[in-house]
Amino acid sequence: MEKRRIYMDYSATTPVKKEVLDAMMPYLTDYFGNASSFHSFGREAKNALDKAREQVANLINAKPSEIYFTAGGSESDNWSLEGVAYSHKEKGNHIITSKIEHHAILHTCEYLEKHHGFEVTYLDVDSEGKISLEQLENAIKDSTILISIMFANNEIGTIQPIKEIGEIAKKHNILFHTDAVQAAGNIPIDIKELNIDLMSMSSHKIYGAKGVGALYIKTGTKLHNFVHGGAQEKRRRAGTENIPAIVGYGKAAEIAKDNMENHVTTLTRLRNKLIKGILDNIPYTTVNGSLEDRLPGNANFGFEFIEGEGILLMLDMLGIAASSGSACTSGSLDPSHVLMALGLPHEKAHGSLRLTVGDFTTEEDIDYIIENLPGVIERLRSMSPLYDKIKNQG
Amino acid sequence: MEKRRIYMDYSATTPVKKEVLDAMMPYLTDYFGNASSFHSFGREAKNALDKAREQVANLINAKPSEIYFTAGGSESDNWSLEGVAYSHKEKGNHIITSKIEHHAILHTCEYLEKHHGFEVTYLDVDSEGKISLEQLENAIKDSTILISIMFANNEIGTIQPIKEIGEIAKKHNILFHTDAVQAAGNIPIDIKELNIDLMSMSSHKIYGAKGVGALYIKTGTKLHNFVHGGAQEKRRRAGTENIPAIVGYGKAAEIAKDNMENHVTTLTRLRNKLIKGILDNIPYTTVNGSLEDRLPGNANFGFEFIEGEGILLMLDMLGIAASSGSACTSGSLDPSHVLMALGLPHEKAHGSLRLTVGDFTTEEDIDYIIENLPGVIERLRSMSPLYDKIKNQG
Ligand SMILES: Cc1ncc(COP(=O)(O)O)c(C=O)c1O
Ligand SMILES: Cc1ncc(COP(=O)(O)O)c(C=O)c1O
Repeated sequence: MEKRRIYMDYSATTPVKKEVLDAMMPYLTDYFGNASSFHSFGREAKNALDKAREQVANLINAKPSEIYFTAGGSESDNWSLEGVAYSHKEKGNHIITSKIEHHAILHTCEYLEKHHGFEVTYLDVDSEGKISLEQLENAIKDSTILISIMFANNEIGTIQPIKEIGEIAKKHNILFHTDAVQAAGNIPIDIKELNIDLMSMSSHKIYGAKGVGALYIKTGTKLHNFVHGGAQEKRRRAGTENIPAIVGYGKAAEIAKDNMENHVTTLTRLRNKLIKGILDNIPYTTVNGSLEDRLPGNANFGFEFIEGEGILLMLDMLGIAASSGSACTSGSLDPSHVLMALGLPHEKAHGSLRLTVGDFTTEEDIDYIIENLPGVIERLRSMSPLYDKIKNQG
Repeated sequence: MEKRRIYMDYSATTPVKKEVLDAMMPYLTDYFGNASSFHSFGREAKNALDKAREQVANLINAKPSEIYFTAGGSESDNWSLEGVAYSHKEKGNHIITSKIEHHAILHTCEYLEKHHGFEVTYLDVDSEGKISLEQLENAIKDSTILISIMFANNEIGTIQPIKEIGEIAKKHNILFHTDAVQAAGNIPIDIKELNIDLMSMSSHKIYGAKGVGALYIKTGTKLHNFVHGGAQEKRRRAGTENIPAIVGYGKAAEIAKDNMENHVTTLTRLRNKLIKGILDNIPYTTVNGSLEDRLPGNANFGFEFIEGEGILLMLDMLGIAASSGSACTSGSLDPSHVLMALGLPHEKAHGSLRLTVGDFTTEEDIDYIIENLPGVIERLRSMSPLYDKIKNQG
């Protein structure tokens, strides 16, 4: 019998959809030209690039001219922060962000503070992971040049009040960046209805290939370039265009757009079934994050008395791929900064498990997890002295 | 009859070799995990990443721990310059480079000058495109923190005296970066014999996929990070690893290493045949760059009395893909900064044509070009008033 493999880590990365790979293949083989070259190979690449730009723009209802391809979400985040910071330092040196941003934002902020003389305010979040609009408005100073608040959180799935944040930014004439790496393509976004100046996006979270992302830059927004060099991307982002991946991203964006309603409904249903199944069958368990304003695919549980790493290990042996905290900090022993910011005590933050469903998740996958996870948790708890005490009290 | 297509633009980008694509395919399909994830999908990706790092290290005889994957040559160049500049600004603000660097170097230098208070010396080159070691040594000041001189030029193929430059850098205790995007994988490089601290490399110039490159960072070299965020690449370069492209790059590096002698010999022979054929058949023609210290695949001609763009257009109609100047500045009307730096007058710089051969170039391709190019040049010259004058004098 082949070992069962259930992928429940769609927020870390997604498989490439077949239609996406099919779209990419010609550009990995015959149509390999450099989009900047002045010959037929180059023109083929250039045409593909133009088409993908339209598809990605269309996903968020932007103009194609507002889409700049990058190497991924991290680059888009770094570009936004450093690009705005350095180009606006005459105006001010203050940036507002939140405590639960991805490290691509937080570590860039820390870098700007430590080495380039910027000052950053890190907004608190409530127990569901939302910032307070009042706290945001109070944090604004004359020297504030940028607000960067993520669209949806990668660990707990909480969706921020982006429209309201945009209005506050606009009222105070401050640029607004949002990290939509988890959101763009997974929930509907109409950029024209939101006062967003800069938005980071990524391909490998929406069934496109790794190695490509985009930065939406609203027409007229000024920021320094991040990667300097050739005249690619209207002279704003240098480097030979990664045409195969860009073409795939375009296709993935098109599919995401066409399939949005079904995607959201199906994932929400599977996710809710999972949450109910777990809460019904495992005591001393909570769901981290908001139950309403949440990415459709995200479930994040807190299991008292145990450690996330142990859960992951045992799930892995059962063929279930899951995550505690975000993928790129795994290997570290610190509890997730996101869960800590929710106000969870250390012990609770340690026992968290993220299960994220996606377009290839089946009802059977969910059933299998609901069947097997309680045993895993019970086994781990049975080794926990803390749990022992609780049980003996009960 | 299908239209003949001859690709003579290997320096702009190369096709992906079949073995490379074959190596990539599993990671574009079944093995799609995030290398930072703590489960079987993640481990598969991580193992692939480790292997590729060894292969790329092996190409230049470096340690795997000295190879950091990036999104490409431009990022590696930007990282080197900005990373060293910002981290050494207490020591000094002076950088030395050359006038014929790729724009990924030149525009980053200009950015550092314009916005971050650095001072850059741009060394001249001689008529073959080589810097003067004496001028280099004279340019060094107490405030010099970095020397960045490219290994081999992308337009004219000239290979710089890298060993000697490294010795000068070492003698003065200054970091040495070299842009080896065109060199690493196309000519033998043993990094242990050269005093290089940082070296930029790229996959899509050596039959790997686009969207990935590497930065060699000698053990112990200090520089700021460029892309901040997750803990990837030993916390030095954030962003979900582009595993398929990295795996492909590893394979391409392995093939390049194994095949180096044959690659160099074959390309040099084809290139020399091309040069001889053109010089023998077309008057008023020169070869730009050095005839000895030259990338094996590079031929760069100066045709008097005409414009490079016209040549490209007519060659394209004949199915021949070529380049004038570098791909990423095509579309601009300025003559190439490289040719200008050689001391060529405007008119001569304008009439340049770069033909670069690669591993799929055949004798027949070369024959076809030698047969057809003279007619193209003659036709264009027949429309040139300058040429008319010369002929009437003759
Ligand atoms: C010498 C050199 N440096 C840097 C680059 C930039 O590489 P990429 O466009 O892959 O980022 C190139 C590519 O044209 C190059 O030839
Ligand atoms: C919210 C968020 N921002 C940024 C990133 C960084 O994206 P990438 O790793 O693709 O560069 C991620 C990916 O994990 C993310 O979830």
